Amino acid sequence: MKKVLVLHGPNLNLLGAREPGMYGSLTLEEINQKLVNTGQELGLEVTCRQSNHEGELIDTLHKARDWAVGVVFNPGGYTHTSVALRDAVAAIGIPVVEVHLSNVYARESFRHVSLIAPACAGKIAGFGWQSYRLGLLAIRELTEA
Amino acid sequence: MKKVLVLHGPNLNLLGAREPGMYGSLTLEEINQKLVNTGQELGLEVTCRQSNHEGELIDTLHKARDWAVGVVFNPGGYTHTSVALRDAVAAIGIPVVEVHLSNVYARESFRHVSLIAPACAGKIAGFGWQSYRLGLLAIRELTEA
Amino acid sequence: MKKVLVLHGPNLNLLGAREPGMYGSLTLEEINQKLVNTGQELGLEVTCRQSNHEGELIDTLHKARDWAVGVVFNPGGYTHTSVALRDAVAAIGIPVVEVHLSNVYARESFRHVSLIAPACAGKIAGFGWQSYRLGLLAIRELTEA
Amino acid sequence: MKKVLVLHGPNLNLLGAREPGMYGSLTLEEINQKLVNTGQELGLEVTCRQSNHEGELIDTLHKARDWAVGVVFNPGGYTHTSVALRDAVAAIGIPVVEVHLSNVYARESFRHVSLIAPACAGKIAGFGWQSYRLGLLAIRELTEA
Amino acid sequence: MKKVLVLHGPNLNLLGAREPGMYGSLTLEEINQKLVNTGQELGLEVTCRQSNHEGELIDTLHKARDWAVGVVFNPGGYTHTSVALRDAVAAIGIPVVEVHLSNVYARESFRHVSLIAPACAGKIAGFGWQSYRLGLLAIRELTEA
Amino acid sequence: MKKVLVLHGPNLNLLGAREPGMYGSLTLEEINQKLVNTGQELGLEVTCRQSNHEGELIDTLHKARDWAVGVVFNPGGYTHTSVALRDAVAAIGIPVVEVHLSNVYARESFRHVSLIAPACAGKIAGFGWQSYRLGLLAIRELTEA
Amino acid sequence: MKKVLVLHGPNLNLLGAREPGMYGSLTLEEINQKLVNTGQELGLEVTCRQSNHEGELIDTLHKARDWAVGVVFNPGGYTHTSVALRDAVAAIGIPVVEVHLSNVYARESFRHVSLIAPACAGKIAGFGWQSYRLGLLAIRELTEA
Amino acid sequence: MKKVLVLHGPNLNLLGAREPGMYGSLTLEEINQKLVNTGQELGLEVTCRQSNHEGELIDTLHKARDWAVGVVFNPGGYTHTSVALRDAVAAIGIPVVEVHLSNVYARESFRHVSLIAPACAGKIAGFGWQSYRLGLLAIRELTEA
Amino acid sequence: MKKVLVLHGPNLNLLGAREPGMYGSLTLEEINQKLVNTGQELGLEVTCRQSNHEGELIDTLHKARDWAVGVVFNPGGYTHTSVALRDAVAAIGIPVVEVHLSNVYARESFRHVSLIAPACAGKIAGFGWQSYRLGLLAIRELTEA
Amino acid sequence: MKKVLVLHGPNLNLLGAREPGMYGSLTLEEINQKLVNTGQELGLEVTCRQSNHEGELIDTLHKARDWAVGVVFNPGGYTHTSVALRDAVAAIGIPVVEVHLSNVYARESFRHVSLIAPACAGKIAGFGWQSYRLGLLAIRELTEA
Amino acid sequence: MKKVLVLHGPNLNLLGAREPGMYGSLTLEEINQKLVNTGQELGLEVTCRQSNHEGELIDTLHKARDWAVGVVFNPGGYTHTSVALRDAVAAIGIPVVEVHLSNVYARESFRHVSLIAPACAGKIAGFGWQSYRLGLLAIRELTEA
Amino acid sequence: MKKVLVLHGPNLNLLGAREPGMYGSLTLEEINQKLVNTGQELGLEVTCRQSNHEGELIDTLHKARDWAVGVVFNPGGYTHTSVALRDAVAAIGIPVVEVHLSNVYARESFRHVSLIAPACAGKIAGFGWQSYRLGLLAIRELTEA
Repeated sequence: MKKVLVLHGPNLNLLGAREPGMYGSLTLEEINQKLVNTGQELGLEVTCRQSNHEGELIDTLHKARDWAVGVVFNPGGYTHTSVALRDAVAAIGIPVVEVHLSNVYARESFRHVSLIAPACAGKIAGFGWQSYRLGLLAIRELTEA
Repeated sequence: MKKVLVLHGPNLNLLGAREPGMYGSLTLEEINQKLVNTGQELGLEVTCRQSNHEGELIDTLHKARDWAVGVVFNPGGYTHTSVALRDAVAAIGIPVVEVHLSNVYARESFRHVSLIAPACAGKIAGFGWQSYRLGLLAIRELTEA
Repeated sequence: MKKVLVLHGPNLNLLGAREPGMYGSLTLEEINQKLVNTGQELGLEVTCRQSNHEGELIDTLHKARDWAVGVVFNPGGYTHTSVALRDAVAAIGIPVVEVHLSNVYARESFRHVSLIAPACAGKIAGFGWQSYRLGLLAIRELTEA
Repeated sequence: MKKVLVLHGPNLNLLGAREPGMYGSLTLEEINQKLVNTGQELGLEVTCRQSNHEGELIDTLHKARDWAVGVVFNPGGYTHTSVALRDAVAAIGIPVVEVHLSNVYARESFRHVSLIAPACAGKIAGFGWQSYRLGLLAIRELTEA
Repeated sequence: MKKVLVLHGPNLNLLGAREPGMYGSLTLEEINQKLVNTGQELGLEVTCRQSNHEGELIDTLHKARDWAVGVVFNPGGYTHTSVALRDAVAAIGIPVVEVHLSNVYARESFRHVSLIAPACAGKIAGFGWQSYRLGLLAIRELTEA
Repeated sequence: MKKVLVLHGPNLNLLGAREPGMYGSLTLEEINQKLVNTGQELGLEVTCRQSNHEGELIDTLHKARDWAVGVVFNPGGYTHTSVALRDAVAAIGIPVVEVHLSNVYARESFRHVSLIAPACAGKIAGFGWQSYRLGLLAIRELTEA
Repeated sequence: MKKVLVLHGPNLNLLGAREPGMYGSLTLEEINQKLVNTGQELGLEVTCRQSNHEGELIDTLHKARDWAVGVVFNPGGYTHTSVALRDAVAAIGIPVVEVHLSNVYARESFRHVSLIAPACAGKIAGFGWQSYRLGLLAIRELTEA
Repeated sequence: MKKVLVLHGPNLNLLGAREPGMYGSLTLEEINQKLVNTGQELGLEVTCRQSNHEGELIDTLHKARDWAVGVVFNPGGYTHTSVALRDAVAAIGIPVVEVHLSNVYARESFRHVSLIAPACAGKIAGFGWQSYRLGLLAIRELTEA
Repeated sequence: MKKVLVLHGPNLNLLGAREPGMYGSLTLEEINQKLVNTGQELGLEVTCRQSNHEGELIDTLHKARDWAVGVVFNPGGYTHTSVALRDAVAAIGIPVVEVHLSNVYARESFRHVSLIAPACAGKIAGFGWQSYRLGLLAIRELTEA
Repeated sequence: MKKVLVLHGPNLNLLGAREPGMYGSLTLEEINQKLVNTGQELGLEVTCRQSNHEGELIDTLHKARDWAVGVVFNPGGYTHTSVALRDAVAAIGIPVVEVHLSNVYARESFRHVSLIAPACAGKIAGFGWQSYRLGLLAIRELTEA
Repeated sequence: MKKVLVLHGPNLNLLGAREPGMYGSLTLEEINQKLVNTGQELGLEVTCRQSNHEGELIDTLHKARDWAVGVVFNPGGYTHTSVALRDAVAAIGIPVVEVHLSNVYARESFRHVSLIAPACAGKIAGFGWQSYRLGLLAIRELTEA
Repeated sequence: MKKVLVLHGPNLNLLGAREPGMYGSLTLEEINQKLVNTGQELGLEVTCRQSNHEGELIDTLHKARDWAVGVVFNPGGYTHTSVALRDAVAAIGIPVVEVHLSNVYARESFRHVSLIAPACAGKIAGFGWQSYRLGLLAIRELTEA
């Protein structure tokens, strides 16, 4: 079964507690469980990781080269400020899909810009935890023979 | 069965013939057929429309208020220049998902900006015709009781 | 009796239904009736047109050269994006007054900019349907011998 | 009878003498007399003030809270540079209409920007002294029960 | 004989009447006749079209794929605002030459920018109706075996 | 006892009445009384002044050279627009602390910029009337032998 | 006794040795001791942390939700570049005061901008280690019943 | 004898005491005396005025229409922020020469911009009090029959 | 026979050898010969000059006043940086047509800007050496009695 | 007698013939003669040079180190584009006064910027050939013992 | 023997595997070995470190104060986004040379900007692993007695 | 032996005399001698040229195609303003290394930008005359078989 990394960036460990009007009331654990389940339906083995550390996110992306066929990545606040993550995505040679819970285009203008998206296969934003689910579907299509 | 509008903007009638390296080799008719089929699997009745006229796209969005539960909309080149379409999306009160065939963030910088996305429920870009399919899935979720 | 064109741009056909908190609860038909009545008080024969099509708005402005002494024009979302409408206003040689229902200066910053106003006689914004009424008064003054 | 303040900003005391091609040949006294007369027709008691001092304009706006139902305000050159006047308009809690003699959008680009308009009820520009008259009409509508 | 489309954008139907100091006193019909004649001298069959509708201009460009070897295109006010027309030019795979009657570089700065020119073979501006004639010559050269 | 000037800029005379959600419900007189009391606890003789006039604020700063050891200054709307006040602060050679009632960084972006702060000793914003109190403490520290 | 976190960002561990003309000659340990003492006078139990790692600063802010009533935070160089820290401040739901040793407004212009301040309760800059002390006072006021 | 107004803007009353490295050690009174003497050599009756109030500077310029043939004007910090003073200079119809003590182009970039200079006859900067003297010479030439 | 100057700017002496994919494989001598021949067909006596020196290009333009009826000018890299050449074109009082071999609008964005074009009669770009030929035709039309 | 260089930049050799409405009807020779005469009155030996070549202007400035006490320099179009001339002025260690015939601040906005002025002693603009004369006066003052 | 730190930033651990067309086919270990060897030839003891963590890079720079005479630093993607690293370089008081494998000026424009270079002794870019070798040579010169 | 051109741009002829704190006290002749010596050690025949004329620098680069394997080029003030030199570098087809004596990134922001670097092999700045020496080393590596 194809293995996929779901990678959550900074502050996503607070989901459920953090501004639920913006980010929903599901905790990260609940979302991860849903994504593992979704993966099973799609024939994907989903592994979830979260870190608030830019360097750890880079390390995790690097290691994914060895075991995953693709990555569903929510870079959180690093979306708008990290060239290092963009370079990591460009370096690893497997498809990465950038996802966001909220519609970033309906928020502050600095959130409209992604330094990372140009190195990704595509971007999905605005559908709550379903953004991740659509991301898994996209990875399945992108990695089909 | 819920009815959904798939709306294609300018130049998408040329799909298949137009820069296939960028946009793929499927014709618009082939994509539409796939979306109708996908809709049936999802329990959605999909109707497809295309126009090169900004005004017709606005008219079509207005009329969709009367019969559709949501819209999957690829505004093509109007994405970056049309406040009128943004206002139309904001006015009709049903969820609209903006989709793009290519990863617009890996192209010219003027394509990174969407005047329409702030009024949409969300945005999906980079997955070829699958961007529309993911858009249909998103509409189904957004319109679930 | 002097003839005046009242020209409504995109999405204004949805008035009453569209975001009433922003645009008021009167329908376009109701506003048009009020403007015809106001015109009669002012000695002006008022004809109202609406279109969501930029090209039709241009065509309508062109034709007004032949029968109207002035135009009260709400370009809606085209206000901020249309050089073609600006050129049309400059070309027709009769006074055009740009009007807006809402105070566009208290909204998103892209709405503060009008590409069309430099070619108009003046601009009125913020008074609901009364903006049109003030526009008719302005046309009467501008066309007084 | 409702009382309205007409407030003229810097350099408007020179009207008639100052660049008549731009601002017209009426003096400020003549305009004020016309506005008092117009007020009488509209059932408004109009009081006119002029100052070249930003601070006096603020003081005058503050005091208007106690006696006026609304203000017709031509901030002149302060339009483009005064946050303090914007804050004053926002603070006094009665409707203020910004007016200009000339069509500021057909002049230097720095005149297109108003720091004050976002705090006003609306804006009217381009109709010579009639801009004030339309402003009085607007105040009457805005303060109608 | 090679067939060439001459395509006129918005407001060019008013030529002769519209600001003759800027655009000359020839009507569009007179210019078209001159271009048909010039075509005959050059061995080109020239067909002229004009529209104020962005969508019609796109449709006309699309159809030209089937019958024309090249296009001489004056996009008028859409030059500065239309990504959709740029995409249409890029999509049709025959050479398009952008032309302008006036020297757009000696006018307002927004007229210096063309969204369409990057997709064209070249650009000619400043020579009145001769700009079109030079455009026909350019098309003949570009389509020579 | 060291003497300190507390200087309030435009519109602060309306405190209590003016947008209490933003600026609190204390009147300027009440705040001044609290600051005089705080001064006594800190061994500072506090004198409070307010003006809506930029020139008077400059004059008052100039005179403070002769009697005060430092200034706690809320420049209000002039914060963002006055080079003259910045030059006055730089000229008087005693420490000035810029204070604001509200967190200006959470408001419109033009309020993030202070033309005056570069000439001040420091800046305090966001703590209601306590911003002034912290400013007095800062002045005491800055003027300690 | 209320518990407060004092959080120091990157390079602040070098205080005393690092550019003393800019940052003073006190070491971080000496400042921390002063802040603990100040806390005791104010009835606050002060705990100090420093990290050069953006991720650790985020982790530390997250954990503070469980034990602290407020945070005095000097984000150092991350002030100007970290959306992730801004989101962390917004997420934790206790008041955070941004502090700086130097008057950042008198330095390079990129230091005038704080990505974090909009999510804070307020900001204090320019008073050396006293900025932290004023921050503790502010936290005490902000957390008073 | 021709009468000339020398008008000093904000903070210039502090000359001699204010940053002498930048502005020199002469007091305003000493400079004024030198300018009166220079005037006598040039056949000009020089009257000097200073104000920190923008409104007074406007009033003084207005009144100069009645008695002076020209103005040598140092607008100080208002140079960079006052459209009202620009409009006053444009309105009075006698030549105004903008002068500065220091070379504003070697200072902060915001001092390079003058909102007032476009309405003046010319500009002189960088020569200490001699800038005024050169300004008087310029006025003499500009007003020669 | 009318005399025309063809003036080539910097690096055009390397034509044929320099990036032939961009600039073609004809040498400057070959192009000049073609232009002389074209001139003979058009009744124009064509003289060609090239220089890498901005000052020589200015000198050559100045001298052309005495003998030429017009200039076809490719300013090369100076197009984007030379106000001095723009002023020279404006000063000489004969029509100058700016030409470019490549479509500068399809290249780096700094090449889209011409400081010189506003002073020219018109601009032609994108047709290889034919750009010059079209330029000669344009000069013939512009100088026709 | 002190020696002074008057240095004229590009296109100034055309004075008298070039746009006399902007630059006056005196030829460069006439102006130079007036400046030599003025120099004699002031006790200055004036030598005049003109070049259209940026490199020659640099060479001439370099050599002036050996014989002149100061330079009156009109850099013409190079004012706005030449860092090399700025560096030359900074390198030669004698005072340079930038002068302009016209009021550059009343012309196109790119003429408001001088790359050279920050390295000069001061700037004088707007007084026709008198700008040079005032420049000679300034040099005399700047080089007084 | 002088000790030098060679510090590699994010993603450089992937060298050899990562986009070899851009970064070369040598692995980081191979480059490090070459640099140790080069160091021995130059009389420098070279120690190499790599981290993807901004905080670790700061920590490593801080510690280098105790044992190294200089640093050759490739900040990778943090070059363009890290004020914290700039402050670390400024704080440690030993010379740091910024190096890059590729010519960053021939890539995306955001790579042209370095937030770190202003605090460094100098910058070397474009020579593959030789950039580091030149950096070692530079450190040897900068630290010569 | 391989031949290399060392090319010095404007004002570098004044080295030693010109701002020695910024550029060092070595004269250009002394630096050239050092570079010839360095060349001999490296097996390179070094020829040095200097010019203040942009055109001569272009000519010299063009001629170097015939005799040199590479160029070490300090474009001085033309670095920031010359597209013509960039095009020359791109045209000659041998590697060019841009060098600067000072760390341009620690100076005025306009010096951070190089129009020429994108066409070079690489860039070295900040090491005094050693920048040239490192440049020679780089050329040797770049031209190794």
